Amino acid sequence: MRILNIETPKHIGKEIKVAGWVNSKRAHGKIVFLDLRDRSGILQVVADERLAKEIKEEDVLEIVGEIRERPKETINPKLKTGEIELLAKEIKVLAKSETLPFDLKNLNLSLPKLLDFRPLTLRNEKIKKIFRIEEEVIDSFRRTMKNLGFFEFQAPTIVASATEGGAELFPVDYYGKKAFLAQSPQLYKQILVSSFERVFTVCKAFRAEPSVTTRHISEYISLDCEFGFIESWEEILDVCQEVIKNIFLSVEENCKEELASFQATCPKVKGKIPRLKLKEAQEIISQKTGKDKTKEPDLSPEDEREICQFAKEKYDSELIFITHYPTQKRPFYTFEDPEDPNYTLSFDLLFRGLEIVTGGQRINDYKYLIKKMKRFGLNPKNFQYYLQAFKYGMPPEGGFAIGGERVVKQILNLENIREASLFPRDMERIDIRLSSLEKKEKND
Amino acid sequence: MRILNIETPKHIGKEIKVAGWVNSKRAHGKIVFLDLRDRSGILQVVADERLAKEIKEEDVLEIVGEIRERPKETINPKLKTGEIELLAKEIKVLAKSETLPFDLKNLNLSLPKLLDFRPLTLRNEKIKKIFRIEEEVIDSFRRTMKNLGFFEFQAPTIVASATEGGAELFPVDYYGKKAFLAQSPQLYKQILVSSFERVFTVCKAFRAEPSVTTRHISEYISLDCEFGFIESWEEILDVCQEVIKNIFLSVEENCKEELASFQATCPKVKGKIPRLKLKEAQEIISQKTGKDKTKEPDLSPEDEREICQFAKEKYDSELIFITHYPTQKRPFYTFEDPEDPNYTLSFDLLFRGLEIVTGGQRINDYKYLIKKMKRFGLNPKNFQYYLQAFKYGMPPEGGFAIGGERVVKQILNLENIREASLFPRDMERIDIRLSSLEKKEKND
Repeated sequence: MRILNIETPKHIGKEIKVAGWVNSKRAHGKIVFLDLRDRSGILQVVADERLAKEIKEEDVLEIVGEIRERPKETINPKLKTGEIELLAKEIKVLAKSETLPFDLKNLNLSLPKLLDFRPLTLRNEKIKKIFRIEEEVIDSFRRTMKNLGFFEFQAPTIVASATEGGAELFPVDYYGKKAFLAQSPQLYKQILVSSFERVFTVCKAFRAEPSVTTRHISEYISLDCEFGFIESWEEILDVCQEVIKNIFLSVEENCKEELASFQATCPKVKGKIPRLKLKEAQEIISQKTGKDKTKEPDLSPEDEREICQFAKEKYDSELIFITHYPTQKRPFYTFEDPEDPNYTLSFDLLFRGLEIVTGGQRINDYKYLIKKMKRFGLNPKNFQYYLQAFKYGMPPEGGFAIGGERVVKQILNLENIREASLFPRDMERIDIRLSSLEKKEKND
Repeated sequence: MRILNIETPKHIGKEIKVAGWVNSKRAHGKIVFLDLRDRSGILQVVADERLAKEIKEEDVLEIVGEIRERPKETINPKLKTGEIELLAKEIKVLAKSETLPFDLKNLNLSLPKLLDFRPLTLRNEKIKKIFRIEEEVIDSFRRTMKNLGFFEFQAPTIVASATEGGAELFPVDYYGKKAFLAQSPQLYKQILVSSFERVFTVCKAFRAEPSVTTRHISEYISLDCEFGFIESWEEILDVCQEVIKNIFLSVEENCKEELASFQATCPKVKGKIPRLKLKEAQEIISQKTGKDKTKEPDLSPEDEREICQFAKEKYDSELIFITHYPTQKRPFYTFEDPEDPNYTLSFDLLFRGLEIVTGGQRINDYKYLIKKMKRFGLNPKNFQYYLQAFKYGMPPEGGFAIGGERVVKQILNLENIREASLFPRDMERIDIRLSSLEKKEKND
């Protein structure tokens, strides 16, 4: 039976079988050194020249041999298997690789090239680590949610109409009728609050972003939750803070190696994450920059960086909640501040200069919800299905959505969100560049 | 602070606060009995008539009162809180409900009506249990996968081209270009085997099924996995068996109440699930029914029920693997049986008369894969992205996909798969009936 590389140090002096890809090959006279890569790490293999003559990088091998301790001077402390090596007796080629188009171990590609060759560049150990972190972020979110008594559901992808107002929707040809890809699971998670009280989902959300930025992709991972029977809207921020704190703790704890590869650390969330109203934040930014931002309905990307820098300096916090966005700029279902209905009980959470969470309290009163829809130019008839949840009694409730790739991008300080998406989609690319697709169609 | 109903028996003699929906109201002279429902269960509330005069079913209440033991003769052994009740002191209405269109506790609706009112009917305790089981099925799948060293990824939804051949695709208008909804994460999970070795995903898959059956929906939950370095194709069946066995064990262990509500049980998987080649199965069915099935390329739904009955009688098994489907009937990437290349190393797993899993070994040899594509009329140029995974060394590999809703349907013996989907989509419905949508558009 095959043994994982990471397990081999337990088998010194024994004959074992390993399998993996040739990460590198170095010849020293009649001896060949192979670094064999499997999902657990790298193992050094020593082979007679004759055994390894035809072997190339990325060939897939199964090797039988004896594990032995390395001579002291050749121990590699950087490698978990650095004190041993495998003396190959038999090498079986499971699959051959063609010559690599670039050095896979020291990638030095532009982002478009990196993505053109995604299936190949994902073999790079450092790139793989990005997605180990993503997996941990999602796992941690699920754990916190389950601990808090939330029910996990699978949100629908195809929806019948624009949920939050018109733009940025992808139309789907649905049996000859027009449907859309869900911009968010918002209406569904609210519906489910009326039966399960506390719900969450890890799902895909879709935005037809008409521009290319470093922080938007067309299909992204949304970590969504919603819960009823809140006694104050601050409970929503408290739960959000708990979720985010645990994500950072989990990543610090379970992804030490991954973080180290990127020389990255997670923020320690000590006590409360600072909370500022949008107006307060805008006044601070205006003071700092000398530009009057107090009339803006939202923070610009530059503002987000500015206020995060302020939070770092003033509160020693890499995170900050911005609350009370204007009613006109938030979706129809957003709860208005009883003290000033021009503003809402809504928030964004900013992390190292980027919004990673958005949330708030929702309107739970049936009649008021209908009134608000009309005020927003929406026809309540088109929302009859959703409105059932409110017509028959909905508790005070709220929730939030975390952008999965954004959290990873910010933790690792990646330049572009596409690096944090396994198979990023944007207006120029679905796996391959859409421009190349057109060319192909013309040639066909 | 609010206490969950399930926790109230710990607070006998104390004043506490609970919150929930009015499940039922019964008046006895000047005393009113309310069954208060929250996410943990039901609590009996005793209130003075004056306090509860305006209260109706499904109103959302917050109640402060004292927990006291019930008189012996009124103890309800069916209820977890059946030995106590709450004597209400204050009742606060958090939200009013309109009069219900039907009795929510004793639903007696046709399936279309049940789905028209899904947001409301999901409040029914028995219906909610279906989705507790679904959650457990998915959790169990994830646990087994993680225990076996699989990496969890989030599969893409929007794809550039038809992956497994043409039909049954939903086209998406993608920035003015034509894309599609993924029929399965197949090509992506294979790509990821070349970097992560063992991968799984819980994702949505989309099939534009042009007919209405009790076992198809347009958007379904797919529990997918794929893994490399298999030493024989039977390993794939072994892993599948392990996953399925654990799902049944988890549901039996963690969903006792849910199963009891449906008078359902999970099969005990003792030893190996029987394995029959398609040809063998067809011969058995032919013998049993007197109809010659040996020339068919696949099993019909009737055949599936027939062979499951055989497995029950012959092996006392509610599950059976059918293997070696014809090469022409399986997708291009399917590995052919070295002993007879007209058949493939592929399988379906049938459970109580229905296919719930499909899987098999895949072609991992780059050149052969291209040859096979061509033989299937596919242009390898359109698969260059995917083919990178094979061009640079892919180990022998395989995997399978479990239909999430189908597993739940079969465990609970539901008549229609739509009952096992929170928000089922089919050619007639996305939440609301598509026919009503058309009418509305005409009226607008």
